[in-house]
Amino acid sequence: MCSLGVEVKSGQPLKVVPGDGMVLHLSQACIGELKKEKGNESVCLFVNVDGKKLVLGTLFTDKLPQQQFDLVFDRDFEITHNWKNGSVYFCGYKANNPFEEEYPF
Amino acid sequence: MCSLGVEVKSGQPLKVVPGDGMVLHLSQACIGELKKEKGNESVCLFVNVDGKKLVLGTLFTDKLPQQQFDLVFDRDFEITHNWKNGSVYFCGYKANNPFEEEYPF
Amino acid sequence: MCSLGVEVKSGQPLKVVPGDGMVLHLSQACIGELKKEKGNESVCLFVNVDGKKLVLGTLFTDKLPQQQFDLVFDRDFEITHNWKNGSVYFCGYKANNPFEEEYPF
Amino acid sequence: MCSLGVEVKSGQPLKVVPGDGMVLHLSQACIGELKKEKGNESVCLFVNVDGKKLVLGTLFTDKLPQQQFDLVFDRDFEITHNWKNGSVYFCGYKANNPFEEEYPF
Amino acid sequence: MCSLGVEVKSGQPLKVVPGDGMVLHLSQACIGELKKEKGNESVCLFVNVDGKKLVLGTLFTDKLPQQQFDLVFDRDFEITHNWKNGSVYFCGYKANNPFEEEYPF
Repeated sequence: MCSLGVEVKSGQPLKVVPGDGMVLHLSQACIGELKKEKGNESVCLFVNVDGKKLVLGTLFTDKLPQQQFDLVFDRDFEITHNWKNGSVYFCGYKANNPFEEEYPF
Repeated sequence: MCSLGVEVKSGQPLKVVPGDGMVLHLSQACIGELKKEKGNESVCLFVNVDGKKLVLGTLFTDKLPQQQFDLVFDRDFEITHNWKNGSVYFCGYKANNPFEEEYPF
Repeated sequence: MCSLGVEVKSGQPLKVVPGDGMVLHLSQACIGELKKEKGNESVCLFVNVDGKKLVLGTLFTDKLPQQQFDLVFDRDFEITHNWKNGSVYFCGYKANNPFEEEYPF
Repeated sequence: MCSLGVEVKSGQPLKVVPGDGMVLHLSQACIGELKKEKGNESVCLFVNVDGKKLVLGTLFTDKLPQQQFDLVFDRDFEITHNWKNGSVYFCGYKANNPFEEEYPF
Repeated sequence: MCSLGVEVKSGQPLKVVPGDGMVLHLSQACIGELKKEKGNESVCLFVNVDGKKLVLGTLFTDKLPQQQFDLVFDRDFEITHNWKNGSVYFCGYKANNPFEEEYPF
């Protein structure tokens, strides 16, 4: 078990594939390093799963630079954000799907 | 096990049914994407359970866009909010009711 | 297992009794719905246990409307708060006392 | 298992002794009740362990009155803070040391 | 099991080595004691792992002095920050790698 970190660049959705019998725990999203102070910007985070687009949360560059999550995905999903001026970093880890372990047949 | 996300639109209560022998963990509430900056708005979240209306929490559009929870429901409940200008997204997951597993009779 | 919610009204202490062999997990406190904007008010939360009055935390009506906790009580206690203008809602759940399970004699 | 609460008064370090085969989980620190509004004050929390003084966190009287922690100590330590105008309350609980249980010899 | 605390001084990266069959849980980062009020400063935290530099989070000296994490590393990594005026303190603990325990061959 190890936390995985990925950079999601502006305008570049990231597809995440947990894999067979696995789940992906999403632990955190944080904005990248602030190059210049541009005043407050809001950054909305989205997840596309099963054809639905849901809001995951909102970050603010001047007062809410990261957010912890406790979300679990057992299928493919896509992460995007609407920040024009930088990247958002996501952390999580893969684990065995506890449901599938208990009822393997 | 997989996190479920739902959009609760303004003025449209959502009924949640965990199902027999199941519990629903409520993990997070977050406001939807901010279309236009309208200044700070407060969004109060309510749960109706067993005929009682309880406050679940409050979000602020300009400084508290999401809140993590660690709540567990083993019966039907209804979620509402008082935001006029947008949706609130809730995340959670279903799990077996640990109490019922240990004492099934 | 199910989360329990209670409203603690202004000036009305709430006595909580976990019961024999049980513990009560206190998960969250949140202020009630704001009727009118009255500017920022601070709301101090107290617990009386074993004859001692301890501070549990502080809420602010305009910027910290709820707080998550991870507290466990195995004996009776009393919750109060000093907010004059509204109720505070507490959430938690009861569980078997793990210590008593392991060493039942 | 039960949460323990202690008041750490200004200028009075608190020595904590988990005891043989036990660990102490530190769950929360919060400032005491605000008597008069004195503007924003910062309160730095310290832990002395193994002869090292480490910063545990910082509280602000007007916007960050408490902080949750997930810290575990298996040896004696001392808690102090630098607030001149009040007490800080700490919550935690004792538990068996899981490492010592697994490898008792 | 015991939480470990380390001071990461300005400009001095810290190498962390979990060790064979172990993982390191990173629980918290907090800024050191504020000597003089210098207005708000942002402090970006980085981790170097597998040749990639990722953002771990951002702290603000006047409103976000600490951040909890739930990150797990099973390999060597390096922590740095970009604060010119002080140290950042990190807390975490080592544990057996649960994955390696289950599949030791």
